[in-house]
Amino acid sequence: MRAPLVGRFGRPDNRSWLGTMRDAVDAFVRNSPSRFAITVFAGLILITTLLLALPIARSGAGTGGTPLYDALFTAVSTICVTGLTVVDMATHWSPFGNAVIFIGMNIGGVGVLTLASILGLVISRRLGLRAKLMAASDSNPSRIHVGPVAERQAVRLGEVGGLLVTVAVSTLAIEAVIMIGMIPSVLARGFDFGTSVWYSAYYSVSAFTNTGFAPNPLGPVAFFDDYWFQSLMILAVFLGSLGFPVIFALARSWRTPRRWGVHVKLTLTTTLILLVAGAITFLILEYNNPKTYGAYGLGKTLYEALFMSTMTRSGGFSTIDMSDLYGSSLLVTDMLMFVGGGSASTAGGIKVTTLAVLFLAAFAEARGAPSMQAFGRRIPRDILRLSVSVVLWGATIVAVSTVTIAQITKAPLDFVLFDVISGFATCGLSTGLTESLPPEGKYVMAATMFMGRVGTVTLAAALAASQRRQLFKRPEERPIVG
Amino acid sequence: MRAPLVGRFGRPDNRSWLGTMRDAVDAFVRNSPSRFAITVFAGLILITTLLLALPIARSGAGTGGTPLYDALFTAVSTICVTGLTVVDMATHWSPFGNAVIFIGMNIGGVGVLTLASILGLVISRRLGLRAKLMAASDSNPSRIHVGPVAERQAVRLGEVGGLLVTVAVSTLAIEAVIMIGMIPSVLARGFDFGTSVWYSAYYSVSAFTNTGFAPNPLGPVAFFDDYWFQSLMILAVFLGSLGFPVIFALARSWRTPRRWGVHVKLTLTTTLILLVAGAITFLILEYNNPKTYGAYGLGKTLYEALFMSTMTRSGGFSTIDMSDLYGSSLLVTDMLMFVGGGSASTAGGIKVTTLAVLFLAAFAEARGAPSMQAFGRRIPRDILRLSVSVVLWGATIVAVSTVTIAQITKAPLDFVLFDVISGFATCGLSTGLTESLPPEGKYVMAATMFMGRVGTVTLAAALAASQRRQLFKRPEERPIVG
Ligand SMILES: [K+]
Ligand SMILES: [K+]
Repeated sequence: MRAPLVGRFGRPDNRSWLGTMRDAVDAFVRNSPSRFAITVFAGLILITTLLLALPIARSGAGTGGTPLYDALFTAVSTICVTGLTVVDMATHWSPFGNAVIFIGMNIGGVGVLTLASILGLVISRRLGLRAKLMAASDSNPSRIHVGPVAERQAVRLGEVGGLLVTVAVSTLAIEAVIMIGMIPSVLARGFDFGTSVWYSAYYSVSAFTNTGFAPNPLGPVAFFDDYWFQSLMILAVFLGSLGFPVIFALARSWRTPRRWGVHVKLTLTTTLILLVAGAITFLILEYNNPKTYGAYGLGKTLYEALFMSTMTRSGGFSTIDMSDLYGSSLLVTDMLMFVGGGSASTAGGIKVTTLAVLFLAAFAEARGAPSMQAFGRRIPRDILRLSVSVVLWGATIVAVSTVTIAQITKAPLDFVLFDVISGFATCGLSTGLTESLPPEGKYVMAATMFMGRVGTVTLAAALAASQRRQLFKRPEERPIVG
Repeated sequence: MRAPLVGRFGRPDNRSWLGTMRDAVDAFVRNSPSRFAITVFAGLILITTLLLALPIARSGAGTGGTPLYDALFTAVSTICVTGLTVVDMATHWSPFGNAVIFIGMNIGGVGVLTLASILGLVISRRLGLRAKLMAASDSNPSRIHVGPVAERQAVRLGEVGGLLVTVAVSTLAIEAVIMIGMIPSVLARGFDFGTSVWYSAYYSVSAFTNTGFAPNPLGPVAFFDDYWFQSLMILAVFLGSLGFPVIFALARSWRTPRRWGVHVKLTLTTTLILLVAGAITFLILEYNNPKTYGAYGLGKTLYEALFMSTMTRSGGFSTIDMSDLYGSSLLVTDMLMFVGGGSASTAGGIKVTTLAVLFLAAFAEARGAPSMQAFGRRIPRDILRLSVSVVLWGATIVAVSTVTIAQITKAPLDFVLFDVISGFATCGLSTGLTESLPPEGKYVMAATMFMGRVGTVTLAAALAASQRRQLFKRPEERPIVG
């Protein structure tokens, strides 16, 4: 109600239609930030779909436009940074189509979710993402829950632009460094300089945003012997999947881990445990599979297991054919993908902190402790309820989508579950099933990707909104989940 | 410390070795009720294994004993009332073997878990299962959490015998009624009177204890056209899977649902929702499968979908071949089996109330409500933490077991996941994979059944133990989970 009053009495004469519209948007955002986020998100997908369906987005003359289901699927996969494909990404699109996808990945990766949360929460003058990011990455826990101060701070720092610039500049800086590192590897494969720069930029953005698209016909397999190139991919995917709160904390105080917040410690610990446990499991299950690691030496096997484990975080690149894996490894991959990456990151899934909170709750229950604890901090109880909501949401989407696609295709569960979880968690690894889906299956999969990505926004917004309910208690710290 | 002191000073001369042993057992039970429960349980399985491995347990002369892995598997399947089989139950065992299995089912079904909890909790003078059963089935909520009174009551009612007799008599009465109802159906199939009584008794016990073994070569398929017989099976499985707290409440006040406790209402509501939703889903997925319902008329299809849905609670009988189902239906069955039946029942799984609590938490989160609510009662917050522990325990066992058996057999995930969840949740439906497992696979499956069953005891004991921590707050009610 405040904005219209100011408009009417403060400057009653020079109110423009722009001001009226801004007030309307502002009211919408204030009343329902999550609905606003979904709207922004759906709008971006719609625009991308329309652009990709245009005949000029497709390579080759006289081929006509891309069918709607393929355009929609690719748009969702791009904006959700999923990386599942239904067309050959290296040959299907024209330079215009590739530009749309390239920009889409960047918007999707850096922005949409954070952007939507920022808009939804900061504009509406709630404790916004800026404060949330700062709080979670803050090295001084006493500065986190400071009641009225946080509120003042949120208003003072409420400049959307400032945060967006910080996130965007950080992203572009990291991507630029990775890209420059990649160029020699691509040149060494015999590509000309222009193509090498384009491929490096594409791979760098695709890896840091955890999308997983590849611009060259062979994909990452072309760099199968290039440990430098693959290591850059691992690094970019790993950083992207940690999430901005963690990246900022590491950038600010990487030499003093003792001062990191509980969210940073929890994210790093869980990620590293999953990374190592995943790699060891792949080693054990696949070391004698003649179609996969059975053909490699020890060093290559170790490295590829680590590569594979990293990519399940939600990078989605692969150097081996997923359909060659044993069913046991596929299931392990399913579980790793479902967990996904860090909160407020470009990765998908239920998020590593969500899993950690569930286990902390189980440990507390087993010990009979009154509250969950991690790194010397109590974790507030209501975070468990949010974690349960996130997991239920994820399990429900995966279950409904898997049953539907299994019924449509009658394909084996190994493959259906894999591709559905990959879609839900925006991972992008595929057994090949997604490509061969009939149109109705592609729509179901697109919906799965959208719900997997947007559900997180909605629930994260709900969390942020509920933070004001929290009473102040000094040593309590709240990791971000979902 | 109290018991030895009494022994030393009260009656120092006539202390027998029996008294000393009773004190030792008492101390063990008091210090670790859940470890005691596991010990009792493992002991019963050991005895049953030894009896079943004896040559006289096997039918036919000069065939020698049953291999250890088959004897162990059958013993675990019997005591855990799972119903998975690795030998032909109708022909493999001698009358002696059948008697061992028949008694084992009864002990397993009625007793072990409840018994273990009773021993563990009532003997150790904690708020015991009797109080728990009474509280959960109580129609007057104000009588539930009465602090010191409940404590006095637990001691006063602390007669293990009284409760055991109540449970055993109720069980035998229900089983006898079902058995008598079944005899005409078996006679109508042309069996003589003695065999008919034996088959009816076996089916009745097998159904009410949710075991799922069949004594006749064809199994339930022999009664495929007999709606009366199948309906008795549905009734027995349904009642058994509700759990004793609910059965007692229904027996006491079935005409006044308004006065049922929240545990009773929650169990009945969730069970009915799962039953109907399961049946409808099977209908939709299988109505045109030529190998299953595609061959039946409408009435038969409707009835068989209901039968199938009931048996996933954890009855485990089937009239169709599970391997003929579509992959989508197998996955739906997986989910229904994983949930299982009611708490403190003969059914397995994570239990319907556990699932309900998770959803209540998510609803509360979505509404931004401070606490979970159901039927006008607040649900205490710490029950969510226990529910999360139960689900994590279940998911972990199923995941590890599925990956292991998939790796051993390289069988499709549809079948591996199905049989593993069926084993974990003591359901007993099978795609046929279990029978064909190599010995190491049978050991893994036996461990899965044991952990699925015993985990519930342990966690339930933990819950009961933690009840004393709860402060008194009038309108709060605690459903039993896990
Ligand atoms: K991805
Ligand atoms: K069973």
